Amino acid sequence: MKKILFGAAYYDEYMPCERLKEDVRMMLKAGVNTVRIAESTWSTCEPQEGVFDFSHIEKVMDAMEEAGISVIIGTPTYAIPTWMVKSHPDVLAETVNGRGIYGSRQIMDITHPVFRFYAERVIRELLKCTAKRTCVIGYQVDNETKHYGTAGRNVQQKFVKYLREKFQDNLDELNAEFGLDYWSNRINAWEDFPDVRGTINGSLGAEFEKFQRTLVDDFLSWQVGIVKEYCREDQFVTHNFDFEWRGYSFGVQPDVNHYNASRSLTVAGADIYHPTQDELTGAEIAFGGDMTRSLKQDNYLVLETEAQGFPGWVPYKGQLRLQAYSHIASGANSVMYWHWHSLHNARETYWKGLLSHDFQENDTYLEACMIGKELQKIGSRLVNLKKKNDIAVMVSNESLTALKWFGIDAAESDKGKVAYNDIVRWVYDTLYKMNIECDFIWPESENLGRYKIIVVPALYAASDGLLEKLNRYVENGGVLVATFKTGFANENVKVSHEVQPRILKNCLGVRYHQFTFPKKVGLQGEITEESDDREAKVFMELLKPDSADILARYEHYNWDGYAAITRNHYKKGYAYYIGCMTGQELLRRIFIRALDDAGINNSVKDGFPVIIRKGINQFGKSVWFYLNYSEKKQTALYRGSDGRDILTGESVRQANSISVPAWGVKIIEG
Amino acid sequence: MKKILFGAAYYDEYMPCERLKEDVRMMLKAGVNTVRIAESTWSTCEPQEGVFDFSHIEKVMDAMEEAGISVIIGTPTYAIPTWMVKSHPDVLAETVNGRGIYGSRQIMDITHPVFRFYAERVIRELLKCTAKRTCVIGYQVDNETKHYGTAGRNVQQKFVKYLREKFQDNLDELNAEFGLDYWSNRINAWEDFPDVRGTINGSLGAEFEKFQRTLVDDFLSWQVGIVKEYCREDQFVTHNFDFEWRGYSFGVQPDVNHYNASRSLTVAGADIYHPTQDELTGAEIAFGGDMTRSLKQDNYLVLETEAQGFPGWVPYKGQLRLQAYSHIASGANSVMYWHWHSLHNARETYWKGLLSHDFQENDTYLEACMIGKELQKIGSRLVNLKKKNDIAVMVSNESLTALKWFGIDAAESDKGKVAYNDIVRWVYDTLYKMNIECDFIWPESENLGRYKIIVVPALYAASDGLLEKLNRYVENGGVLVATFKTGFANENVKVSHEVQPRILKNCLGVRYHQFTFPKKVGLQGEITEESDDREAKVFMELLKPDSADILARYEHYNWDGYAAITRNHYKKGYAYYIGCMTGQELLRRIFIRALDDAGINNSVKDGFPVIIRKGINQFGKSVWFYLNYSEKKQTALYRGSDGRDILTGESVRQANSISVPAWGVKIIEG
Amino acid sequence: MKKILFGAAYYDEYMPCERLKEDVRMMLKAGVNTVRIAESTWSTCEPQEGVFDFSHIEKVMDAMEEAGISVIIGTPTYAIPTWMVKSHPDVLAETVNGRGIYGSRQIMDITHPVFRFYAERVIRELLKCTAKRTCVIGYQVDNETKHYGTAGRNVQQKFVKYLREKFQDNLDELNAEFGLDYWSNRINAWEDFPDVRGTINGSLGAEFEKFQRTLVDDFLSWQVGIVKEYCREDQFVTHNFDFEWRGYSFGVQPDVNHYNASRSLTVAGADIYHPTQDELTGAEIAFGGDMTRSLKQDNYLVLETEAQGFPGWVPYKGQLRLQAYSHIASGANSVMYWHWHSLHNARETYWKGLLSHDFQENDTYLEACMIGKELQKIGSRLVNLKKKNDIAVMVSNESLTALKWFGIDAAESDKGKVAYNDIVRWVYDTLYKMNIECDFIWPESENLGRYKIIVVPALYAASDGLLEKLNRYVENGGVLVATFKTGFANENVKVSHEVQPRILKNCLGVRYHQFTFPKKVGLQGEITEESDDREAKVFMELLKPDSADILARYEHYNWDGYAAITRNHYKKGYAYYIGCMTGQELLRRIFIRALDDAGINNSVKDGFPVIIRKGINQFGKSVWFYLNYSEKKQTALYRGSDGRDILTGESVRQANSISVPAWGVKIIEG
Repeated sequence: MKKILFGAAYYDEYMPCERLKEDVRMMLKAGVNTVRIAESTWSTCEPQEGVFDFSHIEKVMDAMEEAGISVIIGTPTYAIPTWMVKSHPDVLAETVNGRGIYGSRQIMDITHPVFRFYAERVIRELLKCTAKRTCVIGYQVDNETKHYGTAGRNVQQKFVKYLREKFQDNLDELNAEFGLDYWSNRINAWEDFPDVRGTINGSLGAEFEKFQRTLVDDFLSWQVGIVKEYCREDQFVTHNFDFEWRGYSFGVQPDVNHYNASRSLTVAGADIYHPTQDELTGAEIAFGGDMTRSLKQDNYLVLETEAQGFPGWVPYKGQLRLQAYSHIASGANSVMYWHWHSLHNARETYWKGLLSHDFQENDTYLEACMIGKELQKIGSRLVNLKKKNDIAVMVSNESLTALKWFGIDAAESDKGKVAYNDIVRWVYDTLYKMNIECDFIWPESENLGRYKIIVVPALYAASDGLLEKLNRYVENGGVLVATFKTGFANENVKVSHEVQPRILKNCLGVRYHQFTFPKKVGLQGEITEESDDREAKVFMELLKPDSADILARYEHYNWDGYAAITRNHYKKGYAYYIGCMTGQELLRRIFIRALDDAGINNSVKDGFPVIIRKGINQFGKSVWFYLNYSEKKQTALYRGSDGRDILTGESVRQANSISVPAWGVKIIEG
Repeated sequence: MKKILFGAAYYDEYMPCERLKEDVRMMLKAGVNTVRIAESTWSTCEPQEGVFDFSHIEKVMDAMEEAGISVIIGTPTYAIPTWMVKSHPDVLAETVNGRGIYGSRQIMDITHPVFRFYAERVIRELLKCTAKRTCVIGYQVDNETKHYGTAGRNVQQKFVKYLREKFQDNLDELNAEFGLDYWSNRINAWEDFPDVRGTINGSLGAEFEKFQRTLVDDFLSWQVGIVKEYCREDQFVTHNFDFEWRGYSFGVQPDVNHYNASRSLTVAGADIYHPTQDELTGAEIAFGGDMTRSLKQDNYLVLETEAQGFPGWVPYKGQLRLQAYSHIASGANSVMYWHWHSLHNARETYWKGLLSHDFQENDTYLEACMIGKELQKIGSRLVNLKKKNDIAVMVSNESLTALKWFGIDAAESDKGKVAYNDIVRWVYDTLYKMNIECDFIWPESENLGRYKIIVVPALYAASDGLLEKLNRYVENGGVLVATFKTGFANENVKVSHEVQPRILKNCLGVRYHQFTFPKKVGLQGEITEESDDREAKVFMELLKPDSADILARYEHYNWDGYAAITRNHYKKGYAYYIGCMTGQELLRRIFIRALDDAGINNSVKDGFPVIIRKGINQFGKSVWFYLNYSEKKQTALYRGSDGRDILTGESVRQANSISVPAWGVKIIEG
Repeated sequence: MKKILFGAAYYDEYMPCERLKEDVRMMLKAGVNTVRIAESTWSTCEPQEGVFDFSHIEKVMDAMEEAGISVIIGTPTYAIPTWMVKSHPDVLAETVNGRGIYGSRQIMDITHPVFRFYAERVIRELLKCTAKRTCVIGYQVDNETKHYGTAGRNVQQKFVKYLREKFQDNLDELNAEFGLDYWSNRINAWEDFPDVRGTINGSLGAEFEKFQRTLVDDFLSWQVGIVKEYCREDQFVTHNFDFEWRGYSFGVQPDVNHYNASRSLTVAGADIYHPTQDELTGAEIAFGGDMTRSLKQDNYLVLETEAQGFPGWVPYKGQLRLQAYSHIASGANSVMYWHWHSLHNARETYWKGLLSHDFQENDTYLEACMIGKELQKIGSRLVNLKKKNDIAVMVSNESLTALKWFGIDAAESDKGKVAYNDIVRWVYDTLYKMNIECDFIWPESENLGRYKIIVVPALYAASDGLLEKLNRYVENGGVLVATFKTGFANENVKVSHEVQPRILKNCLGVRYHQFTFPKKVGLQGEITEESDDREAKVFMELLKPDSADILARYEHYNWDGYAAITRNHYKKGYAYYIGCMTGQELLRRIFIRALDDAGINNSVKDGFPVIIRKGINQFGKSVWFYLNYSEKKQTALYRGSDGRDILTGESVRQANSISVPAWGVKIIEG
């Protein structure tokens, strides 16, 4: 990217009055250099079947071109027009709840030929109209695509064919691998394949969800293919991935395998939303950023993030700017708000933009102006920031899905109150608050040896090959930190009948036959000394160490014979096993030990609320971000070599104490 | 009305044994002078299609006539017979959840021609049989009518026609006004009009609900028309409106516009239920009464209220009598219990009547006897009580619906925990507890100038005309007290793009661009001095006063630059704006200031639990009610001129201290 | 039974690898003498329509026969194969939620001829293959059968015919008895009979549920008939009844009338699951055991109980053994775990067996080995243990269902938070903790006179005949303890119009006309002296004693005129009435008084956590069980005559103090 893209989604279509000229003026004042347009506007672009009207888009491109503002074009396919559903009601996805009713976005069957036919045509027309325009710097295909639970007859038919291929037509193998004999679910002829929506078989159910995720890969790469027929070499093709939504971007997206789905893109993109005001910690910005950067191991685009957001998110003074630099500190090449102006109707009326409904300057907009001006000044020192992290966290869609079927605190009637992403975030947030930057890796990732530490939270569903890869990683000198539930089942969610943690057993130097839920169970051992929170939480495996050292054992009259947390020296490496959930403080102590074993210097004792992030800019210089996530002024030791505060120009010496104002930022180029 | 109607609903049809003679005897002993019969008994009146059998009704009329007890006849149309549904299953309303299954009442499509055909016939037959009877003093059409969510093809077809008329066939205007471009919901041909049940567009959705409310107006006036063809001049035609139900009568009815629906009636009526025992406050009695009296600005009928009610409502000693006089104190011309005897089967078996299932005298019945006797003695001094209030509260179905779509604490995933009626009741209950009587007005009301103060809670969806009317009201010397969210959107739930509070901005003397949810935000200013509860609650608008005085500003490090509560002297009047929710105590202080500005004397410091209500009786005398809503004896200063306790005959001098027993009543004629 | 059956369900079909030989070895080591096989394996036994393959079953029978292990064969009918649903989708039950989707077990229409046809054929084939085998000691028909809510057209048609017979074609009587006039639900022609799934009439709804329960009786006796055509005289036919499920076996099963359904069986059986670890009290073991033993007034089989169970149930050291002897102490002739090994796929993967997924020895298995060895030694002294109890608790499916429609704390919007089984367990658990053993009886039971005390919790729906039977029981010298809600409605859930507690009024010596919910209401009287918990809970009837003594009255300014708990000397007997719910301590005091009146010696003051149970073994000797349900060692006085600890051989003298270790057991033969 040539610059940090700073801007917002812009919808001329949604305007209650003519605003374009005035909006461009306000954008320029705010240093906005990019707008994202066109996604979700199908009914405006193609008001009737085969009748196209791109006047809104052309008008906006004209204005932006004149103003020197870049444009990202989104294909409009994620929300379908009324005329399509009126003529072809079955383009709406049939899910486990039956066929949907028109209204919401993202409720169609993305595999349906009728939908594909119309989608292809409108994309081609849109590309013809936009691809040659100077202002258009790239494309976003679709929007936060998922499979929308599509499970109609056609999709299930495809799924059966997919299974026939996977199992090479061998039903016995399918029955055995998925354990379908249970409750008489065995399928003895392909013709008997039942409606998968009713299945109670976790292996079959999880396989169907995995299959549904491939529909997303397929759909996105199909769109990318069409777009690439038209677009220029210098135009990127991206997509705005989103995350598990818990009222904000929380964790790994259950319905999309980002790693696979991003393959066809030229640049990875993400939508990142997070709580703010007193709840602003930066953790979601870092999490979403680290994950999206890791997809293509390259810089990425933040295509949506909040300006004012929900009423409860209106940023305090300083926060919008802190957020912007936090994105950049993770390697983002853009900060794009959703959206420029607040909507006057429909549904997301209270998901507010930079401008309120009144289009006036307001405190949030004024802070954006400040950011825009600064980026014009210092953007070239921040764009294309490169990272080299020693630590990686492995995440897995298969494990997430499997733990939805068989929750971490699984009981028949109570599935997954503590879900996969809770464990992922427990691990990630602890690292984040320790100022330890990390990458994400996936089961499919190669070259694990480039990392000194690999953290593996609850990798419940893992193939033998994957576990052997982790074994070899440790053999070759890596440090592995694995948690409970890792490797329990294979990739088909079939629990192993070997002693657990099966293939990793030797590497971890422990075994266990039983597990339970901790109730008033403590933790006791060298790792817990003088700790305030020594509670075993959520789940506990009753570990029997073979070669491993015990870092903590359980404290309870019935369980005190078992270990809880262990460390094993295995060949050239080290392997930690955490048999239960703990507080963040104990996990921090485990990571400190692991950092030591990995030979990573971690002498500096800083951490949240002062978050320190680092990268190498395009001039080959180190750039250090000091981000104060608190309402009080904070100080921290500068870790880099002698450098310069690129916002103020002041020089900063190594090991100087840096003072960062409330919700403030310092950026030092070393 | 010639007398206070005192009685109950009576169902000879539901009796497990022959009771009529004995019931009449017990009624006479209790001073019952009216029964309400026939509603809900269609399957008994017309056991088979076209076969009529009014023997139960005739038998009861005969007995009542002989006993000198009046009868109100209800049309039986709100619960349809099995034979109709068996032959015509599609008379059951098709809602967003699909077509219903026979069983419950009030699940038919009130617009369906089959239903209308049979309903009309049974009404005509019923009227022929009853209209000429001396004992019949009036009719109730249907029962707690609502639209029951009817949204089948026929109803949606009607809705499209309604929209074509409203927008004069101009689809562009509809699209613009409702903001349908959003998420590609634009409708480019009337043929493309989608199933409205799935819409995510708040404007379209709210318009459909408004349309559904008109179905109720239409249905009731159609029934009234039929009834009037038969009934005598001296027979009234009423309907028993009910309220938003939260386990009791809570607030404005979402599914009916009482103001419009009551136009065709000759007398307004209501069903009022409320908690009792320790939770009895009288607020629902006053609320429902003030609202129903305001419909036709005249006395009204309480057609249903609880006797024993649910097991948790069995009244304490004194409460049944306190409740009865509270209804009358609001201008009710009747106190009718639902119902005479408790039901032995079906569903409402534990919604108990005056008599328990055993038909014996019980404490509740015995208290009714006392009331009946007293009313025989003093009823003539209480009937047709007139009110002249200086204060009105404006309520709006449109705002209620809009705030269901876009809740006061709206976030994407969390609609409306604090709903419109919470704000209405916050305002109303504060006035009630201050012993300030008020009327209700609606957006359609004229002659606002007859009130000294108009209180406007959360009038979210308001036309320009309505807001201009409020402006003029203040210009001409009125005192306006408006809360947050007022005027934010127009009548089509399109948020304004003017600076808020748009048309009222000058009148209120404030503006705001942003709002948020208060978290640990205080209130500070002249109005908050020495107050214990200075918390800003639920929602806060960040007010910037222009000409207004600040009564309180926010206390929070990030928000202390903004005002919270303001007062503005505007032309001849005053306008208060309350930018956040507060405790009742602070609201009380605001009302005291407003009373001052309006020149209303409010020097007396009494209030809940002694509720004082006043009216002018048919002899032109003031009647003062002192109602003690507590389990302890209370005293209060008598506010009226020298008079007489009409229950005891004792004389009472002005400013005397009046002692009211626990859950007791004093009534003074001044 | 010749021995205590000790073992587990065993599924060769579900094995991920060949295990049979090794499993048999481990079984023999554990003293396992019985396995239960074949239920739920239809898709393996009949992989395609009419193609049978019993190789798994034969293989297991061969191995067990060789090892001397007995086999119970379950018919596989509770989970249907895919091919059946693919060809005949309508075998899936149509419930109030519509037709199901294939996947889960127990979702078919058990009355459907297609299902019956295939079920009959597979049962016959299975019996042919197994009935002659030496190792096969008995059969279990189906599994935890219920009606699965089946309510399709065919079932409703049967229901109408059932009603025509019940009411001898007299619709007027049906309308009157069910109160269908209410809300116009009256049925004036059989052709008009509406879809019962939508009914809001509690009498009609409860009758339909009663009818649905008869479908279970019919289905089980049909299966038993087929099985008996093949099986030998020495082979038993049983069924594993289960209980209301609240995450464990809680109370009376709502969907099956155990009393009626068990008639066709030769031995009663049950599945009993319960919390363990700190929550293990033995109450569910005793409850389920006492109930199942009472069905045929004989020993019974525990066909399923937990080994490890859910992760949260993994037993502490000693608990598995304590549980085993607790079952036996109630008269069980078997302790069969569900199941031998944990499942690697599907759904119940975390409902763990004796073996974990790894098939290794683990602490739970090792404790089973200890139990198995002990039973080999002492089993002959424990098998066929007989009970003679003086006390019975009457339970009723009709009352349970009625109180689902009209909850104990019934209000319109809030049905049954305190349900029937809460009252049953309140009564039962109090007796259990007092070490008072009891039987259960049903409305259909005869010879009430064999009991000294009959406890009747909330017998809401009772025929006149049943109440008269209770009257006579007291007249003849019995002691009756009845709670609130008893006898309120008849067997058709029609509330009586007599004064309550209607037919029992004289016997109980009280009457009441009203009831309410207690809020801050105390209890005061001779029974409450120095009690810590004198609160009236949940529901209170306002009792007026006629001849009864008041044991406690209500303490509340408005209710203190009413009695709460009474005792009446009536003819030769005594009758207690408990008008409200109380804490267990007060209920215990009432029972102590009743025991006194019944002349039952209850001088020993022991109780929970040391549970004492007693029986007579096949040698005519008394066997006393001392079960310590706590984590601390406990002592208790030995109540029996001089005897011998049959586990250690030590002699024990009458009135000796017995020491029982934590979660431990002593068994004394007197």
